Amino acid sequence: MYEPVFVIPLWADLIAVGLGGIQGALFASGFRGERRLDMLGVAIIGIVMGMGGGLIRDLLLNVTPTTLQSNWYLLTAGGAALFGMLLAGLFQRLNAVIVGLDALVIGLFGAFGTSKALVLGLPLVPAVFVGVCAAVGGGILRDVIMGLPVAIMHVGSLYAVAAGVGCLVLATAEELGVNVVIAAVIGIVVTTVIRLLAVIFDISLPEQRALYRRKVAVETSTIPIVKH
Amino acid sequence: MYEPVFVIPLWADLIAVGLGGIQGALFASGFRGERRLDMLGVAIIGIVMGMGGGLIRDLLLNVTPTTLQSNWYLLTAGGAALFGMLLAGLFQRLNAVIVGLDALVIGLFGAFGTSKALVLGLPLVPAVFVGVCAAVGGGILRDVIMGLPVAIMHVGSLYAVAAGVGCLVLATAEELGVNVVIAAVIGIVVTTVIRLLAVIFDISLPEQRALYRRKVAVETSTIPIVKH
Amino acid sequence: MYEPVFVIPLWADLIAVGLGGIQGALFASGFRGERRLDMLGVAIIGIVMGMGGGLIRDLLLNVTPTTLQSNWYLLTAGGAALFGMLLAGLFQRLNAVIVGLDALVIGLFGAFGTSKALVLGLPLVPAVFVGVCAAVGGGILRDVIMGLPVAIMHVGSLYAVAAGVGCLVLATAEELGVNVVIAAVIGIVVTTVIRLLAVIFDISLPEQRALYRRKVAVETSTIPIVKH
Repeated sequence: MYEPVFVIPLWADLIAVGLGGIQGALFASGFRGERRLDMLGVAIIGIVMGMGGGLIRDLLLNVTPTTLQSNWYLLTAGGAALFGMLLAGLFQRLNAVIVGLDALVIGLFGAFGTSKALVLGLPLVPAVFVGVCAAVGGGILRDVIMGLPVAIMHVGSLYAVAAGVGCLVLATAEELGVNVVIAAVIGIVVTTVIRLLAVIFDISLPEQRALYRRKVAVETSTIPIVKH
Repeated sequence: MYEPVFVIPLWADLIAVGLGGIQGALFASGFRGERRLDMLGVAIIGIVMGMGGGLIRDLLLNVTPTTLQSNWYLLTAGGAALFGMLLAGLFQRLNAVIVGLDALVIGLFGAFGTSKALVLGLPLVPAVFVGVCAAVGGGILRDVIMGLPVAIMHVGSLYAVAAGVGCLVLATAEELGVNVVIAAVIGIVVTTVIRLLAVIFDISLPEQRALYRRKVAVETSTIPIVKH
Repeated sequence: MYEPVFVIPLWADLIAVGLGGIQGALFASGFRGERRLDMLGVAIIGIVMGMGGGLIRDLLLNVTPTTLQSNWYLLTAGGAALFGMLLAGLFQRLNAVIVGLDALVIGLFGAFGTSKALVLGLPLVPAVFVGVCAAVGGGILRDVIMGLPVAIMHVGSLYAVAAGVGCLVLATAEELGVNVVIAAVIGIVVTTVIRLLAVIFDISLPEQRALYRRKVAVETSTIPIVKH
């Protein structure tokens, strides 16, 4: 593999890490379960959301994780998690902030993931896949570690679709010769806007099982899954 | 690390990915939970089952994932997932198909995983381990993402054992000088047949806790969730 | 990346793997859920706890997993898991042994993880992070695979903190020029002692949500954790 010449600017990467950390801490602070999270638990979720996307991207690309090459990533994610905890303590209604940050973070990690994959020579489809995994991977890790149903798996999310469309637009733009930075900005905007519109207008995909609805209606639900 | 000269033929790899994708979509379509899966959720499970084995194998081997070097893998997994959804809509009783496909997919991913590990110079035991992880890893990811109990962990599965025996036979055959392709075919057949026989005759491993049965008999099942 | 000259002695690594394997099997044997674990399930948890720390460390460092370069790691983890099952059958009260072994295993994996990361040139903060992930990663995998709430996420654990302090002491000592072996021993002792003291004196971190206690007092617990 040739030496990658492309480097996502540190400040851009740290913004994504920091926003992810804040978002994760806000989300975890709002968690109401039988077993509460302690401060450490909230901090871990903040770090998972801040670092997860970059780590998953670099694991899939088989390169040494950028997020572990400098002290700044972890310090930023940890500081952002603390800041998120303070915010959660100050405000009562944070849902809009959490959703908005989340949409932006998905856009950022998706764009960075796809861009890096393209620079490393991956074809278009896997490059988009890496972007989507980077975008939604942190959230999957968060849900699994917190024992919640994985958000992207359930009706009404449009998570992965938003990330996928944004990454596809970015990758197509780059293939067509658009400047890397402009393509990344377009991809981020597309993902963020789709995600926000989906939340605002409560758009969801058709249920797969509407195809054989009668069977479902007869059967009772035998495998309980957690409710959010 | 030397340059690997061994390449699993693309068509063989794509067959495994495609069958995995169909199996995953069928499995996910049959899922009855409180929260239904949408089409995207079913597609994600199809892609996880189609791509998971190869990704886990290549992560453990620390090589760039083969499944991300070409557009074909994701297109095949995605197309297979769609096909699986259609099949699930057409038929009412798919359990036999799901189990049969699953046995074959385990065999394929196990054989490819162990073969690639041996070519990269791993000793026999870890090569078998990589094969088993490739075989069962997709299913573990599926169960975790869907919020189901992990199938290989519970009485009556014989999942990992089937994969382990098949991979061990393959690896031993290769060490004894048998042609790589013949060894792979033998390994696939062994795993698939063991898995199918285990399902048909409902064979399971002895419970570990039969060893101290009395204690269990006295206690009721009181700790659904462990407290540390 | 330059060729790493540092090698954790095989015997030390195998001790960590073996103790992890025993601990995992003891833990899994003690599990009382609706769905019991069979022998294979107990063995898998033993192997996960024995191998998990090293695998996660090497994945994060993007190096070929040491634990897959020799037959000894898996044979040790598997043998230790079997031994753990026998122990669990012989004794009725194993909780103290499980907790003690766990504290030691966290210390060992943390120290090896941080040492290896420093040798590979990682800065201090990510080196500590790799150590903590190696220390607690096996337990997270175990909890996820067993369908349990992830232990490090809940009030009263002080798991990750013990690992973090030990790894930080180790890394700081190495930066100050202390011999690598002495630094590792100090790090192991610090982690193990903190973890044991936390268990003995039931020390825990302040709840993050004590910050807005009133809100919690009003609300009932609305997100049930799934019972399998």
